Amino acid sequence: MWEKAKREYLMMFEEELKMGRVDKDIVWLIRKINLLKDYYTTSSCSGRIQVTANRVPGEKFNLITLAKWHRIIKIEELLTVIETSCEENLWFSVQPPILHVVCRDLESAEKLLEIARNSGFKHSGIQGLNPQRIVIEITSSERIESPLRLKGMEFVSEERLQILVKIANELLIKAKSKLVRLGAGLSSLKSRNNILGRSYDSSTGSFRFDR
Amino acid sequence: MWEKAKREYLMMFEEELKMGRVDKDIVWLIRKINLLKDYYTTSSCSGRIQVTANRVPGEKFNLITLAKWHRIIKIEELLTVIETSCEENLWFSVQPPILHVVCRDLESAEKLLEIARNSGFKHSGIQGLNPQRIVIEITSSERIESPLRLKGMEFVSEERLQILVKIANELLIKAKSKLVRLGAGLSSLKSRNNILGRSYDSSTGSFRFDR
Repeated sequence: MWEKAKREYLMMFEEELKMGRVDKDIVWLIRKINLLKDYYTTSSCSGRIQVTANRVPGEKFNLITLAKWHRIIKIEELLTVIETSCEENLWFSVQPPILHVVCRDLESAEKLLEIARNSGFKHSGIQGLNPQRIVIEITSSERIESPLRLKGMEFVSEERLQILVKIANELLIKAKSKLVRLGAGLSSLKSRNNILGRSYDSSTGSFRFDR
Repeated sequence: MWEKAKREYLMMFEEELKMGRVDKDIVWLIRKINLLKDYYTTSSCSGRIQVTANRVPGEKFNLITLAKWHRIIKIEELLTVIETSCEENLWFSVQPPILHVVCRDLESAEKLLEIARNSGFKHSGIQGLNPQRIVIEITSSERIESPLRLKGMEFVSEERLQILVKIANELLIKAKSKLVRLGAGLSSLKSRNNILGRSYDSSTGSFRFDR
């Protein structure tokens, strides 16, 4: 049952990847986790900078994402988004990485949780204890959530935007560096060489079909 | 062992309360949780608006809190903090409620986690599985983290601050209202009338020593 669900998620991941829907920055880590015997990922984001149109932060269903970058940005990119948008409200945000990992059992959940915390992901936790689906959310607290425009009124001049972008880039790099620490920490966990009749080719970082 | 730890935390809580160190807005909820047979709280915040001096958000050890309100604020209060501070960098933030609750066992942890999620605290999770200390972090995602001043340069004019304060107050109320839902959800859990030789006096909301 657990193995079947894992297999399905792995296939879904490869499909999404082909369609360009996966944040490329985190593929290496997802692959590393999915190669482990006792874990698989269901969703992930490597951390991002974004501009959204919404009146109040956190409005999930009343929000339009105007731009999303999983990397550091240049002020010109941000200016273009602001200048070409006629939305009444705009927010600029930095969001830390977030991963959801299904664990085989409580013992494996505990191990991964410890590695996540030691990698700096202090806001990680087990989200539910259904034996078929023990999910860990791995995340941290690097955040900016700052208005660019409210009620049609511009909030940040170009000169100030320069400083804000610099800080945002710095924060994003800090958050993303925790993914590298997490990846290194995973090395202590059991892996298996062969998954779903495919082997992992560490030289290319991709899967190879066994014939 | 678990009971002893609970007793110690309850006594510590009463001491902190006497010394005015507990966020009053959440005392009713902490009392309600601590009256339950299988839980006790170790730390909590009912959500807040604050102004801090720091260059980059999330700098835990390089941050000075200049003002902290566990309630909605008036623009004049914020202006006073800004005008009287000569720090080079100032950030304005709204933070959601956060509670840490120790659970007797996994079964009780699962029950509380479900209630927390159904109350809107979607970022809740079990932080560790040490049998002596199964801790749940209960929190949500209402956040603002916005610069007021960077490199000595003011970021938000008074006119814009009016709008920002209005949004911040609205967000804080939204986040705090989840505490009421959480409190209501707890009613399905087992309580006990007598804790540590003290009874809870519901008319005064305080503990009464049994003689």
